[in-house]
Amino acid sequence: MGRAQCRSDMAQSSTLTKRESYAPMAEPLMEGRQRVIVARVSPEVDCGRFAIKRVVGERVIVEADVFADGHDQIACQILYQQSGHELQASPMKPLGNDRWRGEFTVDKLGGYCYTVEGWIDRFETWRRDLEKRISAKQDISVDLLIGAELIERGAARAAPEDARVLLDCAQRLRENAGNDSGAAIALDSEILKLIRHYPERDFVTQYEKQLPVVVEREKACFSAWYELFPRSCAPEPGRHGTFRDCEEWLAYIASMGFDVIYLPPIHPIGKTFRKGRNNSVSSQPGDVGSPWAIGSAEGGHKSIHPDLGTEQDFRRFLAKAADHGLEVALDIALQCSPDHPYVQQHPEWFSTRPDGTIQYAENPPKKYQDIYPFYFETPQWRELWQELKSIFLFWIEQGVRIFRVDNPHTKSFPFWEWLIGEIKTHHPDVIFLSEAFTRPKVMYRLAKLGFSQSYTYFTWRNTRQELTDYFNEVTQSEVREYFRPNLWPNTPDILPEFLQVGGRPSFVLRLILAATLGASYGIYGPAFELCENAPVATGREEYLNSEKYELKHRDLNSNHSLKSLISRLNRIRKENPALQSNRNLRFHETDNPSILCYSKASDDLSSVIIVVVNLDCFHVQTGWLNIDLSSIGLDARHSFQVHDLLGEGRFLWQGSRNYVELAPESLPAHILRLRRWVRTEQDFDYYL
Amino acid sequence: MGRAQCRSDMAQSSTLTKRESYAPMAEPLMEGRQRVIVARVSPEVDCGRFAIKRVVGERVIVEADVFADGHDQIACQILYQQSGHELQASPMKPLGNDRWRGEFTVDKLGGYCYTVEGWIDRFETWRRDLEKRISAKQDISVDLLIGAELIERGAARAAPEDARVLLDCAQRLRENAGNDSGAAIALDSEILKLIRHYPERDFVTQYEKQLPVVVEREKACFSAWYELFPRSCAPEPGRHGTFRDCEEWLAYIASMGFDVIYLPPIHPIGKTFRKGRNNSVSSQPGDVGSPWAIGSAEGGHKSIHPDLGTEQDFRRFLAKAADHGLEVALDIALQCSPDHPYVQQHPEWFSTRPDGTIQYAENPPKKYQDIYPFYFETPQWRELWQELKSIFLFWIEQGVRIFRVDNPHTKSFPFWEWLIGEIKTHHPDVIFLSEAFTRPKVMYRLAKLGFSQSYTYFTWRNTRQELTDYFNEVTQSEVREYFRPNLWPNTPDILPEFLQVGGRPSFVLRLILAATLGASYGIYGPAFELCENAPVATGREEYLNSEKYELKHRDLNSNHSLKSLISRLNRIRKENPALQSNRNLRFHETDNPSILCYSKASDDLSSVIIVVVNLDCFHVQTGWLNIDLSSIGLDARHSFQVHDLLGEGRFLWQGSRNYVELAPESLPAHILRLRRWVRTEQDFDYYL
Repeated sequence: MGRAQCRSDMAQSSTLTKRESYAPMAEPLMEGRQRVIVARVSPEVDCGRFAIKRVVGERVIVEADVFADGHDQIACQILYQQSGHELQASPMKPLGNDRWRGEFTVDKLGGYCYTVEGWIDRFETWRRDLEKRISAKQDISVDLLIGAELIERGAARAAPEDARVLLDCAQRLRENAGNDSGAAIALDSEILKLIRHYPERDFVTQYEKQLPVVVEREKACFSAWYELFPRSCAPEPGRHGTFRDCEEWLAYIASMGFDVIYLPPIHPIGKTFRKGRNNSVSSQPGDVGSPWAIGSAEGGHKSIHPDLGTEQDFRRFLAKAADHGLEVALDIALQCSPDHPYVQQHPEWFSTRPDGTIQYAENPPKKYQDIYPFYFETPQWRELWQELKSIFLFWIEQGVRIFRVDNPHTKSFPFWEWLIGEIKTHHPDVIFLSEAFTRPKVMYRLAKLGFSQSYTYFTWRNTRQELTDYFNEVTQSEVREYFRPNLWPNTPDILPEFLQVGGRPSFVLRLILAATLGASYGIYGPAFELCENAPVATGREEYLNSEKYELKHRDLNSNHSLKSLISRLNRIRKENPALQSNRNLRFHETDNPSILCYSKASDDLSSVIIVVVNLDCFHVQTGWLNIDLSSIGLDARHSFQVHDLLGEGRFLWQGSRNYVELAPESLPAHILRLRRWVRTEQDFDYYL
Repeated sequence: MGRAQCRSDMAQSSTLTKRESYAPMAEPLMEGRQRVIVARVSPEVDCGRFAIKRVVGERVIVEADVFADGHDQIACQILYQQSGHELQASPMKPLGNDRWRGEFTVDKLGGYCYTVEGWIDRFETWRRDLEKRISAKQDISVDLLIGAELIERGAARAAPEDARVLLDCAQRLRENAGNDSGAAIALDSEILKLIRHYPERDFVTQYEKQLPVVVEREKACFSAWYELFPRSCAPEPGRHGTFRDCEEWLAYIASMGFDVIYLPPIHPIGKTFRKGRNNSVSSQPGDVGSPWAIGSAEGGHKSIHPDLGTEQDFRRFLAKAADHGLEVALDIALQCSPDHPYVQQHPEWFSTRPDGTIQYAENPPKKYQDIYPFYFETPQWRELWQELKSIFLFWIEQGVRIFRVDNPHTKSFPFWEWLIGEIKTHHPDVIFLSEAFTRPKVMYRLAKLGFSQSYTYFTWRNTRQELTDYFNEVTQSEVREYFRPNLWPNTPDILPEFLQVGGRPSFVLRLILAATLGASYGIYGPAFELCENAPVATGREEYLNSEKYELKHRDLNSNHSLKSLISRLNRIRKENPALQSNRNLRFHETDNPSILCYSKASDDLSSVIIVVVNLDCFHVQTGWLNIDLSSIGLDARHSFQVHDLLGEGRFLWQGSRNYVELAPESLPAHILRLRRWVRTEQDFDYYL
């Protein structure tokens, strides 16, 4: 390390304050008699820096290490609180090895927090020891007097009627301390039950942090998205579609069972450096340009492209969609075309090059001259942030409650944390989807900062190993506390190799995986249901004649459309609560790497789905499953029925090992609902 | 949960303050342009609540997730500081996947802290992009002007002579921006080297915590302990030994290579309820009692048992020990006999029962009427803590610097944190050994609170699986940052079953394991080296005729004494730095579960020891090792010599798989030193 660098550190980093690493409690002396330790509370994201996420009605299962010195019994409980409301408590039970667990349910939108407190349970300690002394036939007369004192102290905390009962008991203990009836009085289970209501919590230890929860509405976790370019919705080819045209599509989309229609940006599109078909650098007259090149003389992020319609048309479209049970998600891409009004009005929000021009978007050597990124290091960042926030508020005002955010990973992290916090404080029902396909830590950070849902690597995970590893990571590790996956088999930017080569069976396969592996999933339609799979060039994932740069016109009634399969899948998802959560995913062994098997089960095991997928879209695959029966509440002795909700077959299976055979062209997967027999004790006897 | 319980929570727990879980930065707005994230810094114990531990001269390897939005290059460094001294910096390098690593060395006793800071590396970003533009043959004239600006800004931060060079470079860049020589000026590696000394660290992000380190002296990690009852040191049987007698033992103990002599409590012993031989409840006249029943009319924790000698004798013994290279560790047992002066002077430091008697120690139904525990919940806890601290200070004053603390897990945790902090603030060279054989989380907590070393479960870990699991936990998980194991094959309280049944070979085996698995280990002697193995009863781990309750007299020159093996082992430990650390332990596969193989290597791989042990003390065992060569800096192509420092054999081994045969009666283990060939390039060519 260079000499000068060191000097420079000292100057710039004098904020590293001296800290006494020894004796943190030397002064002032706190309460030295707090003997209980509460540590390693989970869930806890980055030492409590970030909130865990839940939807209304979900449980929060809290665990903690709680223990004390010596041999005393301890007790502990969760304390939790909806912001601005009353504190509540929920008991915890020991799991062994000084670990405790409890739970509470969040039933309101907004913020909660929780913590854990523990204390010496003096009465239980005394009672446990007393039982041991009695077993060892020791003299307990003094111990009974100690118990009388504990009960009297309990009475002092009790409601009057309970206090009377306790004081009476204490008195009888004192009177009978020397004779044989004392033990029976002391161990009376009614007294135990009563005094448990009035624990002596002196020197209680509360965990040093209050951990935050953000509670969102159910759709933040469970949703089915359909991405649609409204300009391609005209009934006749070649005409620019309008919101009025889109209304005609609502019945079609609703019939497939989707609940979110997501629209790419609907704003005026820039003309300077407009991209032509297939992303050519020069556009031809009539080329419509990319919707992500936002802004022209006709307006910016708060305006609607005149060819789509008016604000009134848009609001009418939202209402019509709602009539079909559909919500509209808007795409917010925080970038400008060179023609955006901001460029003239606020040049300070952009970076200027030494030649006086504005810095266009680049990832050298690639140049995107039709896009000006906002300059998040501008000295006027406060004004920029406020203006960007006002864009979201504008569309919230129009009735939008879901935003898909374009490339959030190229805007500064502090901005997103502030923005989402600001919006959700006043609109806790707003959902944000993070469209970041980038490095894992960046994707996870965005989720921690507040995005409700995130795009995932599912798009490129095809093999059993890849799928198992990735979905174990997002559903079984700490990641699940803050990252909610939204699975997309395709997007306007990504036609994955797997779909390019696998034909219709590969679309079927990826659709089934997306709809059952994830509680949220989406497709870019109608490209998906019509199995469009021509890339712009070999080795590229861009669509040929991409809809990003031109109008499309399709035949929705094509024979090979997947619309009926999609309808069925979305109905299965809605009818089976097991498929509406992510944290309940479990993979099961198979003896054939082309066969993937996983299950999902509701908390109470009343809904259990087992999915078996042939990952090979070219060949029939057969194999044996090895199902972890305990994870779905079964044991190996009994047979059980599984009902294939896709193929309608019914199978009687026994134990963990069962055979499957799946043909890609006809039935590439089973989605099996477990039918649980209700057996009586007599039935069990019969089997034994 | 009961109604009343809830109400009671509310009253007692109103301290759970409302927290806005949204928008933590809504107001006041901090610097919104800090684009770099620094997260998940390691090592970090419980979110920085506890210090990591090191000894003087050790490295601290620091890792962190550091990344920013977008595509900019970032840079980061460790900042670290000895308490009260200048801040220093150490560079970090990328490991991939946004993880960075660096290190620093702690070379002074006391407290350090460290953190990580990251920033956008504007010059590196510009230079990387420039290279890509040049490769793509793009016009770079404006980019060269941008570079000139960056270099000019660097010059403003630079020392005068460097500034001149930089400004000259910037000027040449401006002059040649439009022609072909500009690129060469921009990419000049001398300029790069120079400007790296003056990084532009605007909007630098410092990790939000400063993480503490406690640095102790080498013996806190690397030490060999010998436990000795001084009262058994008299040369003739039946007489109570004295410190003067102990002096005669120093040469013997030093010759075996130990560096710490640990003495059970040396204080006056109580007479009331004194325990007789073999822990009988009534003592006979002449019974010496347990040294842990501390205090009599002759004094308490600051007094010396008159039969051992005077304070002067004790100080003389410390000096004589030092002459032999031995340090004396005292046992501090914070409990009193009923005759302890504290009981009269400070009855408020003890718990009183309803019948007016003082509460003796209990673990019902067991009673220890000869012991009064201190009452850590006394309202006078502050005075109690101060008095207990004064005990340690008293013995420090006498020259003691190592304390073995008896049963710390039955005293309150806040006390230990305070006590150790207080003592080490003024005496950073003091070492504390925690004698807690209790539940894992309690043992680890005590280590976190500040104990330098801890007793371990080694005493009961015998099989390959048990040893591998346990030592991986304490040396390869986060535990190693705060928990330093001290391995004891026996103690006066524990004669393990394994030693009871395995005869002398089992003592040899356990000794070798203790001395090589752990950087610190100890034996309770001479019971250990003389292979005493008679239990008080079948199924018990207590010694028959335990030295805890009577004087012993032994023949140190017994034929079967292990003293020469102990000498050899301690010499091997001293001569091989590999054996002086714990975190470098690696287990290797063997094809026979009775054969355990592990290695230790110094950081620079100059010292490498491979240990192979036959865990079966009854049969010859043979098997193949599968050594992870990369962990000891070898590759599979080359043969290498291993020199058995125990048996003096030399073997030429090749690759990872090598054969061993070990007989419990003759040679139950190899302790192999790797002899590395120094080969030239020509040698390699020869082999290839």
